[in-house]
Amino acid sequence: MPKQAIRTAVKVDLNKPAWEQPQLHNRWHPDIPFSCKVQPGEVVNVECLDWTGGQIGNNDSADDIKNCDLSRIHYLSGPIEIEGAEPGDVVVVEIQDVQPLAEQPWGYCAIFDKNNGGGFLDSHFPNAAKAIWDFEGIFCSSRHIPGVRFPGLIHPGIMGCMPSQELLDTWNEREKELVSYHASIGTDRVVAQLPLEKFTHAGSADAESAAKVAKEGARTIPPREHGGNCDIKNLSRGSKSYLPVYVKGAGLSIGDLHFSQGDGEISFCGAIEMAGVITIKCDIIKNGVKDMCMKNPMYIPGPVEPHYGPSRYLTFEGLSVDENGKQHYLDVNVAYKQTCLQFIEYFKKFGYSGEQLYILLSCAPVQGHIAAIVDIPNACTTLGVPVDIFEFECLPKEGGFQKIIETDCALTSE
Amino acid sequence: MPKQAIRTAVKVDLNKPAWEQPQLHNRWHPDIPFSCKVQPGEVVNVECLDWTGGQIGNNDSADDIKNCDLSRIHYLSGPIEIEGAEPGDVVVVEIQDVQPLAEQPWGYCAIFDKNNGGGFLDSHFPNAAKAIWDFEGIFCSSRHIPGVRFPGLIHPGIMGCMPSQELLDTWNEREKELVSYHASIGTDRVVAQLPLEKFTHAGSADAESAAKVAKEGARTIPPREHGGNCDIKNLSRGSKSYLPVYVKGAGLSIGDLHFSQGDGEISFCGAIEMAGVITIKCDIIKNGVKDMCMKNPMYIPGPVEPHYGPSRYLTFEGLSVDENGKQHYLDVNVAYKQTCLQFIEYFKKFGYSGEQLYILLSCAPVQGHIAAIVDIPNACTTLGVPVDIFEFECLPKEGGFQKIIETDCALTSE
Amino acid sequence: MPKQAIRTAVKVDLNKPAWEQPQLHNRWHPDIPFSCKVQPGEVVNVECLDWTGGQIGNNDSADDIKNCDLSRIHYLSGPIEIEGAEPGDVVVVEIQDVQPLAEQPWGYCAIFDKNNGGGFLDSHFPNAAKAIWDFEGIFCSSRHIPGVRFPGLIHPGIMGCMPSQELLDTWNEREKELVSYHASIGTDRVVAQLPLEKFTHAGSADAESAAKVAKEGARTIPPREHGGNCDIKNLSRGSKSYLPVYVKGAGLSIGDLHFSQGDGEISFCGAIEMAGVITIKCDIIKNGVKDMCMKNPMYIPGPVEPHYGPSRYLTFEGLSVDENGKQHYLDVNVAYKQTCLQFIEYFKKFGYSGEQLYILLSCAPVQGHIAAIVDIPNACTTLGVPVDIFEFECLPKEGGFQKIIETDCALTSE
Amino acid sequence: MPKQAIRTAVKVDLNKPAWEQPQLHNRWHPDIPFSCKVQPGEVVNVECLDWTGGQIGNNDSADDIKNCDLSRIHYLSGPIEIEGAEPGDVVVVEIQDVQPLAEQPWGYCAIFDKNNGGGFLDSHFPNAAKAIWDFEGIFCSSRHIPGVRFPGLIHPGIMGCMPSQELLDTWNEREKELVSYHASIGTDRVVAQLPLEKFTHAGSADAESAAKVAKEGARTIPPREHGGNCDIKNLSRGSKSYLPVYVKGAGLSIGDLHFSQGDGEISFCGAIEMAGVITIKCDIIKNGVKDMCMKNPMYIPGPVEPHYGPSRYLTFEGLSVDENGKQHYLDVNVAYKQTCLQFIEYFKKFGYSGEQLYILLSCAPVQGHIAAIVDIPNACTTLGVPVDIFEFECLPKEGGFQKIIETDCALTSE
Repeated sequence: MPKQAIRTAVKVDLNKPAWEQPQLHNRWHPDIPFSCKVQPGEVVNVECLDWTGGQIGNNDSADDIKNCDLSRIHYLSGPIEIEGAEPGDVVVVEIQDVQPLAEQPWGYCAIFDKNNGGGFLDSHFPNAAKAIWDFEGIFCSSRHIPGVRFPGLIHPGIMGCMPSQELLDTWNEREKELVSYHASIGTDRVVAQLPLEKFTHAGSADAESAAKVAKEGARTIPPREHGGNCDIKNLSRGSKSYLPVYVKGAGLSIGDLHFSQGDGEISFCGAIEMAGVITIKCDIIKNGVKDMCMKNPMYIPGPVEPHYGPSRYLTFEGLSVDENGKQHYLDVNVAYKQTCLQFIEYFKKFGYSGEQLYILLSCAPVQGHIAAIVDIPNACTTLGVPVDIFEFECLPKEGGFQKIIETDCALTSE
Repeated sequence: MPKQAIRTAVKVDLNKPAWEQPQLHNRWHPDIPFSCKVQPGEVVNVECLDWTGGQIGNNDSADDIKNCDLSRIHYLSGPIEIEGAEPGDVVVVEIQDVQPLAEQPWGYCAIFDKNNGGGFLDSHFPNAAKAIWDFEGIFCSSRHIPGVRFPGLIHPGIMGCMPSQELLDTWNEREKELVSYHASIGTDRVVAQLPLEKFTHAGSADAESAAKVAKEGARTIPPREHGGNCDIKNLSRGSKSYLPVYVKGAGLSIGDLHFSQGDGEISFCGAIEMAGVITIKCDIIKNGVKDMCMKNPMYIPGPVEPHYGPSRYLTFEGLSVDENGKQHYLDVNVAYKQTCLQFIEYFKKFGYSGEQLYILLSCAPVQGHIAAIVDIPNACTTLGVPVDIFEFECLPKEGGFQKIIETDCALTSE
Repeated sequence: MPKQAIRTAVKVDLNKPAWEQPQLHNRWHPDIPFSCKVQPGEVVNVECLDWTGGQIGNNDSADDIKNCDLSRIHYLSGPIEIEGAEPGDVVVVEIQDVQPLAEQPWGYCAIFDKNNGGGFLDSHFPNAAKAIWDFEGIFCSSRHIPGVRFPGLIHPGIMGCMPSQELLDTWNEREKELVSYHASIGTDRVVAQLPLEKFTHAGSADAESAAKVAKEGARTIPPREHGGNCDIKNLSRGSKSYLPVYVKGAGLSIGDLHFSQGDGEISFCGAIEMAGVITIKCDIIKNGVKDMCMKNPMYIPGPVEPHYGPSRYLTFEGLSVDENGKQHYLDVNVAYKQTCLQFIEYFKKFGYSGEQLYILLSCAPVQGHIAAIVDIPNACTTLGVPVDIFEFECLPKEGGFQKIIETDCALTSE
Repeated sequence: MPKQAIRTAVKVDLNKPAWEQPQLHNRWHPDIPFSCKVQPGEVVNVECLDWTGGQIGNNDSADDIKNCDLSRIHYLSGPIEIEGAEPGDVVVVEIQDVQPLAEQPWGYCAIFDKNNGGGFLDSHFPNAAKAIWDFEGIFCSSRHIPGVRFPGLIHPGIMGCMPSQELLDTWNEREKELVSYHASIGTDRVVAQLPLEKFTHAGSADAESAAKVAKEGARTIPPREHGGNCDIKNLSRGSKSYLPVYVKGAGLSIGDLHFSQGDGEISFCGAIEMAGVITIKCDIIKNGVKDMCMKNPMYIPGPVEPHYGPSRYLTFEGLSVDENGKQHYLDVNVAYKQTCLQFIEYFKKFGYSGEQLYILLSCAPVQGHIAAIVDIPNACTTLGVPVDIFEFECLPKEGGFQKIIETDCALTSE
């Protein structure tokens, strides 16, 4: 029987506020009503807004990043009911394609202000900055970061099933404890975002449910047992994700599409963020959670990832000795930060600003590996950068390099 | 002009105590005399002992692991003088081949006792265990871990140039501070190993120099700015490492050869450890340290790494919520531990013991990535396991798996 | 300046006869008027009909294949004028994406009747047969060939610039000679298709030009110096083709899109044929033909080809001894035919019909290599089949295989 | 039980004439006695002479190539009895490693004189020429072809089991017919080499058997159903070959080791020829020939092939229109010749001689594909050249290229 055009299970409207679209939501809570239903084995399109719900413009100023309202983000598409899925099952989501919207062939990657979002290197780069990326089929390039061009490893930053009430309670409890502990020791960072009533969007929930969601609903920034905001760059075309089911019908939600991202998504707004459409097929493995001892999701990458030969990766190393020379004990975070800074210092020689490189490192398909984690006191991490993303020769050579980049990325107006 | 057979710059004797071989040493110190000299561009072989200097036997007991003397390790081959290298230069080491010794076609991977060495998962696996791996050309397999077989990603765990006195002093100072701090807060772990006179092997140093080396020489366990014990699995055949030079002649030392290792080398004795021979060619980039802003080494992997398609990696995820359900703040170490435990639980279903899987995870070519490091409060890491190393089908499927493995790895006698 | 949605330079109408669409043409001739103009560096979409211009339906009979009118094919989109291109230049066409049309998410691969088109193995498979392939994002599968599923290596079968009159004359002359020669020796095959007035479609040409085109225009089946119907499976997303320019404005035409094809396209209608849209960017290398000694096109494949590890290819061999045991002298055609037949015999054991396998071999991404061409009297070719396209285990094993396929592809009604 | 060093099943002596070594032979015949025995599953080393048995020297003249005695070649190591193998079985040969001999770290690739051996392009390059290649671990480079360096895809050119008398008779018969036919039409080329008594080496055969072998023994140049001189470049480390068995004990013979070869081995002495040692493990699939419908061997490549990303292949195209402009009918040989000539013309621009490029094309790991074989009258082939084998930039660019190569390969003395 002839094949029909693929059904679009969730549509979005770029010209309407995200919070007025009932097929979207921005909290994880079992009481958010399903926005549509799919059959196991059915192929559907799901449209998604960009993660800020349209707050960022295609322009040459980072003011919109600086002033971005981070309580109005992650309007996810769903929850999608998967017919027949029950708690304890595993939903297998095959991502069959991800595409930007035809009418919006661009995305952005940015550095958040240290006081509004921050990022992995915010002590080095405290001010907001931005790069717009233009899409040309599988490729992207940026007028704000000249000299690079690469194929996207396109993927959703967020994908997960709705938690049960019990799991939700566990999340809220443990995150509350973390916040309490850090408050008690006087940490000056925001260490977690607890439920927040303001700007809660509970999809098509009625008033009563919406109030409950607003009060208890888990925020969307962190990845958790169900998946969520994993920001795994390899969940791209052709990948298969195995997601635990906690509620009848699963309640799969998806959002935060990325045209490309590097391991770590280090600048926080660190992928090439975009609105777009994802094509998926969901299947169910009955009782899969127990049969496969799953606590967290698993996945298998897809067969069409951009690939470079191994000898085309310039790889930087870093240790758990911080930039002040202080020795830390097997701390991978410190090591990875040093590794990132090594990359930035190296490529500054070509004329890039630190901000440009921080952004590039966030969104280009770099490989961040945990190399050694047992050689006391130094953890060692590596960062592999595909040299073919650069349009100039960048491998080490005698005599050093020439400055060839003369313009900066988008900065704030003051 | 016809090519000669390749010269062996450093030979080892497997039948003689390591400490009686003056071309070896087990500390980093600028006063250890060069053991040989090579020219830039010259290809030489360098033989190496296994990292324990022969303490571990090809047998079915882990007693030798349990009782291994960890102060008698890392007898490195060198230091090799590289003609013309001066402080500030960068030595480029191309690894042209690494091979086990023909007379010893086996290696081992082990779990150290929690009280003698420990490892990344020692709170779960406190007792010593061992697996012997037999080599068949590029492949290895183990009678102690049935059902797996894979090609080696053969490499040296240790490679680096001698530090200057100034750099050495920095190392000793910062590590001493770490030890002091942890002593002050009552940490019960060994967090770093400070200089130790006992069993210092200063190569061919005279008595006076040997005494200085014994007193000040940096221990060999941690990787540091010069490289050292980086345990980077991809420094394999065909790779190029860029190493900073701190002393005239460079003083390159190499050791701790691995037939294979996974990212993290998590069980500490976590690679397939072996004696062997490495073929290298060294070149010099004059003033490379400044020209390339190098603080730590860089490298480019080789073109003959074993390669599987991306869709042949079953990938596990983990978060910075520990096994007791406690939430940690963006802690990659916690996340990677959870990721490793997920792998272990999954594969136990096939009948493997936890120890077998802990060993396998340490030495098989698994990919440990830092996926997301900015989504407060959860860091997310991934662990990609090539399914083709298993001789049975291991991908997720409905109905769960059958136990097929019936024997365990080598354990201790009591 | 913000990026616009990508312009569609050539549109097609699936509901209108191909020959009534003036932006299409089905001959190579310099007098066919340009159908649109693009600037160097401009990104445009070009829509294309399937190669038969819509003659084949999504149904379960091969009658449409049997009766296909082969004089009404290859309605190409173009010729596209590339501003500034002159004879002697080289046009660089970067394929930025290729997609099926959203409203037609399927394609077909077929065996032509020996007396209407034929194919590489028509002496073994003389009757028409067909398989419909359904698209799911990057993947395809067929109800007519169960048990296989693979990602497309999507590409245009035809791409080339318009010949000059001189080049056209050369083509016509040499092909006429070939036909004459074969007529003189009584060959019973059609060896080439000379200009044919009937059903010539000269785009928007006026009557006079159209008559000239009809009389002289080169047919579209063969690839020639300009490219044309090369059927190179790797001209996929991200590839760059270098095409010689013979006329002012280049006159680039594109068509015959394939969702996937194997090396050789052996069944003639041997790719997964589809209508679709290709996104391209054209640049010009001035005087490139002479500077690079180009006689035929060159290309560089794209970075997102589906990739399997090398150990996932089951590879068949064949020699230039034909199926009757007759020895031929270094004949690659004979050898490749034997190699194909080996594949077919092997996989018949699983229950497939020969027709199913002939079709599969034509359209799956198999690698056909010329292994040895100098070892008199036997040429040796190889055919690498990625085993991961099969949903069952198919590697050689003791005990042989079980029949698991029970249905056939679409056949003719009598 | 501890693993022993690997047993060497066949040793060769480089300082003794090949024909005096009874563990070698240079004909295929069932009466050549086994030279050793191995068990299924046993890992053994097999040493091999280079294909000319030592006739070619490491020097700067091609005179030894010009005068090479082609009746004294292919002294193969074996036949090896495989315990338990019987006619109808399939022997699975896993190649676990291939290495040059430590005392001879070099090889050669050459063009034979048109009147002594010839080659694929001998009408263009009729004179002998040679390049010596030096090995540095996995890499090779040549003083005779500056500017290139690449890792070897090391493999045996010849591997196969002894034919039965019946199969041997078939070979002799069909090749004799070919010779007769060509004689009848006055072909001036040698089209096949029939049995030749002179210089037959029948291993350790007694006089009577040796006489039979000399009279009937199949020559070793062509690949045949049993494998033999297949010259498949991908039978490298880690590959598995499936070879039909025709006589009790199989009688596996191996020889003609190559450090590297391109598809086609086009210059005939076209690989980097060397003496060396191959490590193999043989297993048996009982009744495999019938169960898998095998007529010719199959194989699965190994996991450590040198790999470059797909975008690092500059790919040339060729058609079945010959260099005189004559149109041939779907002739892959003609097309591949044109493709090779395109490569040569392109790279001449850098200063290389045609001979250097002919040699390079023969021995570098180039990919020769049959692209399209059904588009009458033109066959289309492609030749993918990994650009990373060149030490300079060689991709197409505006303005053409500079001559940078100034020396030629080894030529003959007159």
